[in-house]
Parts: sequence; C-alpha cells; structure tokens
Amino acid sequence: MFTGLSAFPLTPMDEVSIDENAFSQLVSRLAQAQINSIGVLGSTGSYAYLNREERNLVTRLAVESAQGTPVVVGIGALRTKDVLKLAEDAQKAGANGLLLAPVSYQKLTEDEVFAHYQTVSQHSSVPICVYDNPTTTHFEFSDVLHGRIAALPNIASIKIPPLSNHLDEAKERVARLRAHIPHHVTIGISGDHSGATGLIAGCEAWYSVLGGLFPLPILAIVKASQRGDIDEVNRLSTALEPIWAFFRRYGSLRVIATIAELKGLVKTPSLPLPIKSLSGEERQRLTACIADLL
Amino acid sequence: MFTGLSAFPLTPMDEVSIDENAFSQLVSRLAQAQINSIGVLGSTGSYAYLNREERNLVTRLAVESAQGTPVVVGIGALRTKDVLKLAEDAQKAGANGLLLAPVSYQKLTEDEVFAHYQTVSQHSSVPICVYDNPTTTHFEFSDVLHGRIAALPNIASIKIPPLSNHLDEAKERVARLRAHIPHHVTIGISGDHSGATGLIAGCEAWYSVLGGLFPLPILAIVKASQRGDIDEVNRLSTALEPIWAFFRRYGSLRVIATIAELKGLVKTPSLPLPIKSLSGEERQRLTACIADLL
Repeated sequence: MFTGLSAFPLTPMDEVSIDENAFSQLVSRLAQAQINSIGVLGSTGSYAYLNREERNLVTRLAVESAQGTPVVVGIGALRTKDVLKLAEDAQKAGANGLLLAPVSYQKLTEDEVFAHYQTVSQHSSVPICVYDNPTTTHFEFSDVLHGRIAALPNIASIKIPPLSNHLDEAKERVARLRAHIPHHVTIGISGDHSGATGLIAGCEAWYSVLGGLFPLPILAIVKASQRGDIDEVNRLSTALEPIWAFFRRYGSLRVIATIAELKGLVKTPSLPLPIKSLSGEERQRLTACIADLL
Repeated sequence: MFTGLSAFPLTPMDEVSIDENAFSQLVSRLAQAQINSIGVLGSTGSYAYLNREERNLVTRLAVESAQGTPVVVGIGALRTKDVLKLAEDAQKAGANGLLLAPVSYQKLTEDEVFAHYQTVSQHSSVPICVYDNPTTTHFEFSDVLHGRIAALPNIASIKIPPLSNHLDEAKERVARLRAHIPHHVTIGISGDHSGATGLIAGCEAWYSVLGGLFPLPILAIVKASQRGDIDEVNRLSTALEPIWAFFRRYGSLRVIATIAELKGLVKTPSLPLPIKSLSGEERQRLTACIADLL
C-alpha cells in the first residue's frame, strides 16, 4: 500500500456539491491500472475544503470503485478531536490506510505535533502515513521528530516533500531520514517533478498527483525504477518536464484540475472557490502539453 | 468601531464544548471598559477551529453581553461559500462589523483573493475589516491589492501585521499603505508588541490581544496616543514589555490563554488540541509577569 505507486485523484466539485459520478470514474481508472494504492482526500483531493459528511461520502465512493485496490484516506484537520472522528469514519467506510498532515492555523510546536500523532495512532487500527508537506501545513518536521512519530504504533510511511535536484543531496537527505526511523516505515516522494529523483534516491513509494489522473505513465517510471533502469526513469520523467514546469509555477492542484477539465474527465469548474483552475493564455499553453496523455 | 481600541477576547473551550459562561464574562469585562469595539472570533478567538454552529453560538453570546459596544465577528474560512454563510449568520445574530482573513491551505493568488473579497463585500450589509495576517494565512498582500480591495463596497478598515521597531520605517510603511487606499478606510495595528509603534506611526486603531483580557492598560495607551502624548504611550507600552516578550516567543494565543487560566478567568485547558497553553517553567515565569494585570 505504501510502496510503488500511490496515486491521488481530484475530488471534483463546484459551489453546490461534489461530482460523485466523475469522482467514482477517476477512482475506477486508477483501479484498472493496478497501482499499489489510491490516496483519496489528499491535498489534490481538497480534503481541507470539505466537511465531515462530504469526506465520508468521498471515502465511501472510493472504496466502492477501487475494486480491491487499497484506499488511503486523508484525515487531516486543525483539531485533534476532528481528526479522531475522521479516522473513525474512514475506517468504518473501509479505508485500508490513513494519511495525516499536521494542518495548522496557529503555528504548531514539535511537542504539539507529536502529541497529535500519538493520540491518533493510538486510536487507529489501520496503518498511517505521515504527511510532511510544509507548503500547505507550514510545519517543518525535524528528523528527530520524524523518528519519534515513526516509532509510534501504526505508523507505516512518511510522505516527504520534493528533494533537491542534485542527486547526491537527494540521496543524502533520504539516507539521513532513514537513519532516524524504524525499518518497516517506508519513505515516499511527493511533488511529481521530484518523483524520479526520489525513486533513484531510494524512496520506496511515489505519492503522485499526475498519477491520480494518468496512472500509466507514472507506473512505467516506478516499474523502471524497481528493475533498476535509471536511464529509463530519467527518460520517462524528462518527457513529462513541460507538465512539471506547470506544477512548479502554478501549484499542482490548479494544473491537474485544469488538465482534468480540458480532457473532459471532470466538469468546469472543478475546484472550490476561491481557488480557480488556469484560464486564458496559461490554459491554452497547458493544452499543448497534454495531447499525449491518456 | 474600527478606530481606537478594538479588543479580541479568547473563546475558551475544551475538547467537548465552548465555555459559554466564561466567554460571556470576558465580553462583559470589555463592555464595561467602554472600548470602541469587541472583536470576537479573531485568531485569538480561535475562529479557524470552530464549526459554523459554534461560531454562531459565540456571536450570539457576544452580542448579548456587549451592552451596545459594537461587535466585530471573524468570518474567515477556506471556501468562499462558507464565508458567505458565516457572514449571513453573523449579520442575523447582530454583528456590527465583519473581519475577513484570506485563510488558505493551498497558497492563493492575488486574483483569487481579490475575487474572494469582492464576492463577500457584495453580500454584506455591514462594514468589513480586511485581516492581513501572513503568519496564519500565509498570504502576503501587496499594497496594490490592498488598494483594490479597500475600494470595494463595505470595506472599512485594514488590520495590519506588526511594523518595524524602527519608527521611521513604521511611519513610512503606514504612509505607503495609506497612499493606496480610500480616505474612509482606517488602518489598525495588530501584534500587541507593535501596538504603541503602530499608534505613533499613524494607525487609527489597535486590534489588541492583551486588550481582550485586560482592556484598561491598552485603553490608557490608546488615549495617550489620541491626545498626542507619545512619551506616555512609550512608557506604558514599555511597562508591558515582559508580556510582549512572551507573545513574540510563544505566539500571543498560547500566552493570553495561559494568562487567562492563571488569573482564573477561564478553565484549564482553554485551547483546542493540538494547541496547548504554556506549562512547566515557562508557565511559572509568566506568572511573575502578570501580577499587576487586573
């Protein structure tokens, strides 16, 4: 579940409701591609913008459409008590794993974040992935804190932010984190532009945004990495560089939503206001980059 | 309402509920002090951690206890549609003004933030204060954007983050912002350690955290400023420097909650987990600083 390709679909929505049909079809695409897990209600799934009932609905739809592929569900929220409720809802709905980010409004301390994970891990009966995403949570994990949390019961993986483009630095970063955590806890890369580097640097999983819409090209990179074909990993990822450039510039959520809209996989608009997908010239430029994606 | 002292009380709570009684008493203290407005559900009021029903409850309690002092209500939320509902709730409950921060999970663009304020301002029938707080929202307003938003209907004030300690820089910053906004829009300082500087630099309001618990010492500084007695402003603020030092180090929310707990004005704990008030030696050191506060 927390190795290989874990792909994160959008939760398409407008100001009235979630597009249940479109969402179920996105999950079905992933199930057919035979990836390692489906990560719903990640940042790409806009978990932070949905209430408890909506998140429960999305989880139930995902489990129904996943055809046995393990489903990992994002349970992040500002309050510990709300995370506990979301964890319980997700497990009751059939989630195979949980993804937990230290979401903040007030900047959190290390002790507060540790206690938060400790409480949730004690109340969980499925494996948990620690979601380290300083861009959205504004919390920076130290390696020591990662080590303390990774030693808690039920912690099974860490989803790390993008690595340096310099392979030596990337390898060193993964090795340094690995030295702090138990053997059974995997490390997964996120930030798709850093995916290939992450795999080459020794991450066991790729938590992918583009893979949430187009699993096959990302799965090909993961498989090349698993058979040790680094040249192929680099070749395949470099072919996607025009898309990575958009991710870096506009944020992966706006870009992947625009791609899904352009490909007719979701209605337009698909994001919760105030967030908007790309428009005008940017949208036109993106159209030219995605012709080959199926 | 958006000049002089606007004081922001805590919303005391535990993992089960809001302490309605303690909250009403905090609001009554402020009403008795005859300040210019009471700002409930600001960052100090933990608005981001409460759901719609809880926020409605807090607003109703505040209006009941405010004895005619204008009540300003924080309506920030991640989604535009949720802000609209909160704005409607607050106005129905008798709010005299609204406070709106561009709360984010995904980093927002200038255009997204402008459209967000535009939509809310069109749907409001009471004055709105723009809440510029990059520490919690992770959005940095440009002066041009402030100018565009301040020109919208119903925008009446801007709550700005702390200024430079260097008075020349602080004055220059306030003057630069003033040059971008209409005459009728006031500028209010926040970050209590920067309050005196803000008043001397020309801000018309102090949006105060300590004033939400102890209005009199802050009101004395505001009144000294209004009669042009800068020496007295500095003297009174400097006397509070030990508390400002705590605010800077631990964040004002944890410190003001700890002070309220120590003074018996709220129960312990009073903050939503994972956030904790100060404990151990820090709490002891704080006790020594607050003996004079009434």
